[in-house]
Amino acid sequence: MAHVELIAVGTELLLGQLVDTNTPFIAAQLADAGIDVYATHAVGDNRERIAHAISAALERADGVITTGGLGPTVDDLTKEAVCDALGIDSVRHEPTIARMEAFFASIGRPMRENNRKQADLPRGSIVLENPHGTAPGFLVSAFEGKFVAGLPGVPQEMKPILIDHLLPRLRERFGGERIVTRVLHTTGLGESEIDHRIEDVFRASENPKVALLAHIGACDVKIMAKAPSEAEAAAMIAPLEKELRARLRGHVYGADDESLAATILALLRKRGWRLATAESCTGGRIASALTSVAGASQSFAGGVVAYENAAKIALLDVDARVIEEFGAVSENAALAMAHGARARFGAEVAIATTGVAGPGGGSPEKPVGLVWLAAEWPDGHRSVSVNFAGDREAIQARATQASLALLWGILTSGEATAKSS
Amino acid sequence: MAHVELIAVGTELLLGQLVDTNTPFIAAQLADAGIDVYATHAVGDNRERIAHAISAALERADGVITTGGLGPTVDDLTKEAVCDALGIDSVRHEPTIARMEAFFASIGRPMRENNRKQADLPRGSIVLENPHGTAPGFLVSAFEGKFVAGLPGVPQEMKPILIDHLLPRLRERFGGERIVTRVLHTTGLGESEIDHRIEDVFRASENPKVALLAHIGACDVKIMAKAPSEAEAAAMIAPLEKELRARLRGHVYGADDESLAATILALLRKRGWRLATAESCTGGRIASALTSVAGASQSFAGGVVAYENAAKIALLDVDARVIEEFGAVSENAALAMAHGARARFGAEVAIATTGVAGPGGGSPEKPVGLVWLAAEWPDGHRSVSVNFAGDREAIQARATQASLALLWGILTSGEATAKSS
Repeated sequence: MAHVELIAVGTELLLGQLVDTNTPFIAAQLADAGIDVYATHAVGDNRERIAHAISAALERADGVITTGGLGPTVDDLTKEAVCDALGIDSVRHEPTIARMEAFFASIGRPMRENNRKQADLPRGSIVLENPHGTAPGFLVSAFEGKFVAGLPGVPQEMKPILIDHLLPRLRERFGGERIVTRVLHTTGLGESEIDHRIEDVFRASENPKVALLAHIGACDVKIMAKAPSEAEAAAMIAPLEKELRARLRGHVYGADDESLAATILALLRKRGWRLATAESCTGGRIASALTSVAGASQSFAGGVVAYENAAKIALLDVDARVIEEFGAVSENAALAMAHGARARFGAEVAIATTGVAGPGGGSPEKPVGLVWLAAEWPDGHRSVSVNFAGDREAIQARATQASLALLWGILTSGEATAKSS
Repeated sequence: MAHVELIAVGTELLLGQLVDTNTPFIAAQLADAGIDVYATHAVGDNRERIAHAISAALERADGVITTGGLGPTVDDLTKEAVCDALGIDSVRHEPTIARMEAFFASIGRPMRENNRKQADLPRGSIVLENPHGTAPGFLVSAFEGKFVAGLPGVPQEMKPILIDHLLPRLRERFGGERIVTRVLHTTGLGESEIDHRIEDVFRASENPKVALLAHIGACDVKIMAKAPSEAEAAAMIAPLEKELRARLRGHVYGADDESLAATILALLRKRGWRLATAESCTGGRIASALTSVAGASQSFAGGVVAYENAAKIALLDVDARVIEEFGAVSENAALAMAHGARARFGAEVAIATTGVAGPGGGSPEKPVGLVWLAAEWPDGHRSVSVNFAGDREAIQARATQASLALLWGILTSGEATAKSS
């Protein structure tokens, strides 16, 4: 099995001003590809120290992957350090210059001289193209068949280069055992409840291995299988997945990269329904989650962020007396908001939220964290109140997740009948 | 100045199953105490590798702080590795045994034999008490006046031990210089443009040091000063900050923990204005950014996510002929949306977005990434089109950031006069 070390470059990492999410992302991708990460490191923007870290890592491992330090500034020194460590020089990659010139022309900004530096790559590099930025990555051979790869530090740029360009090459070179991972996404059950339901499966199986990963308002069940081929690993996962789905029936909304929002949009599309949102305390987060899915426009009509009471009345036709009598954070207000959104957008389903996100605005009767959710569909409606824990951000995130879970429950329970019925 | 290296221990870190937040936390605390972090590492639960990492770090630095691997299981090997690296043995710390026995009695659980292992510490250690768990931390001297400290990996246990027991000792021993950091947040200038404008400052100044940190649609300029006291460091930053603000005039919207959304809400509050949003391609992200700020309700009236054309017409009073003639992604549509939102919410200012977020829906005239932004205020309006790079997520994030930047520009330029005028 191949051993690789990861080196994140950036003084801000050593000052604790940035949490490095690149390293765990790359590590997880390498694990899936059956490549072992021996150790990870972070070093500052210092040419000598970066070169030293690369040399030391190459003594232990078969290869090194760096992140960061490929930018245009004087602090970006990773490529220089790679050259130092390998005893090579760099060459300017002209196609990258041309691509950068085209990029700057397209955004109507001048290309600075310092940008040209980003096209200088260690001699002999395979260029790993960067579709989302100016700095390409690179893969260069070191002594004894070892390698050094450099990726940019911006996660949005790093990820596609890693997945589309670097991993296929590393897999081809080092791939032995394959690890296949299947992630089941659940909602509505706590981590300990899931643990309780599948405990025996957990314990019995070392390969495939089962692990739980808790998120805000959701929990993933991860199944990992190792086998000589992808097909064999997948075949090992299938019966276990079936068993786990049976144990967690009614709570598994999707697998792998299926998001709850995408699942909901697919269910809506199947029924020929359109959805509208009426958000107060979630402030646009439900609409954001839905519109993050490509093609959302087919089933998402739109929404109102009715933050002020006046907006609830003017744009969602909530009766002023409802707010006066029950308050804006109430079951009646939530139901009226859902009703109003459905009517205004001419949608089949609507979801509404109103609550106290805090830190201010709480009272003994309506404490910070209290949120009313309501949904209305052609032949029914449902409302629920939850007391969410955490700070403002956590309450908003949990309320958004709970709203999507409520919608998913309605669309899958048979409670809401098809439009034609 | 003292140099320290951090070593996080745990195979789960190398599999990418856990994001290590301990390392940035400790790094930030050390920076505040004027102790330099030379490099950070993560290694697996392997006695030999941990010992090797400690030895290698001690060659470069004045001390090493480890996190993790202090638990009762066979996988917890940090203390054994420290002993190996320093050539010492361990001794059982009887007061810790007594404390653990009392702890298990208090929770009514039997103390397992393997828990006793947690009281075995490298000989000569100063015991760093753990008020929130069973495993104490330790601080032990190495050769040449160097040190190794071990902290537990559970953040809730690690933090109080670090702050109450380890840092005071390190400060006493190494403390001298303090580091103060000031971060200026800019918008509307690329990283290379900022670099170009302040390059000479970058190069001229080692202390305070200036660094750039690029984000989506924004870039931070960081000034770090080292001095014997916090006040002296702050005094060194002030003139440099003034100079940098002058160089980047019109682009610095805030400093340190001030967000662009919070800055906009504060500017609105000062004028007694309220804001409404009309979002198509940003799908609720502008409203989400604004409502993430506590107290947003004072100045944020609400918004419409007008995803469908029908919603633009029904809820924002966009003339159907405008959409027919110019298309939903057009300057006219964006201006009409801003106008409609202002009227519907009775707000002084409105911001609107309409664009092609992709991946589908692009055309030669209106490619993926094209976004029209428009704002309207009591005595004026402004519109701008931008071609954003990246995938759907990046385009939505960049358009949101650009919308906030446009609002900020309007509220600060004097272009929009105060309500009373």
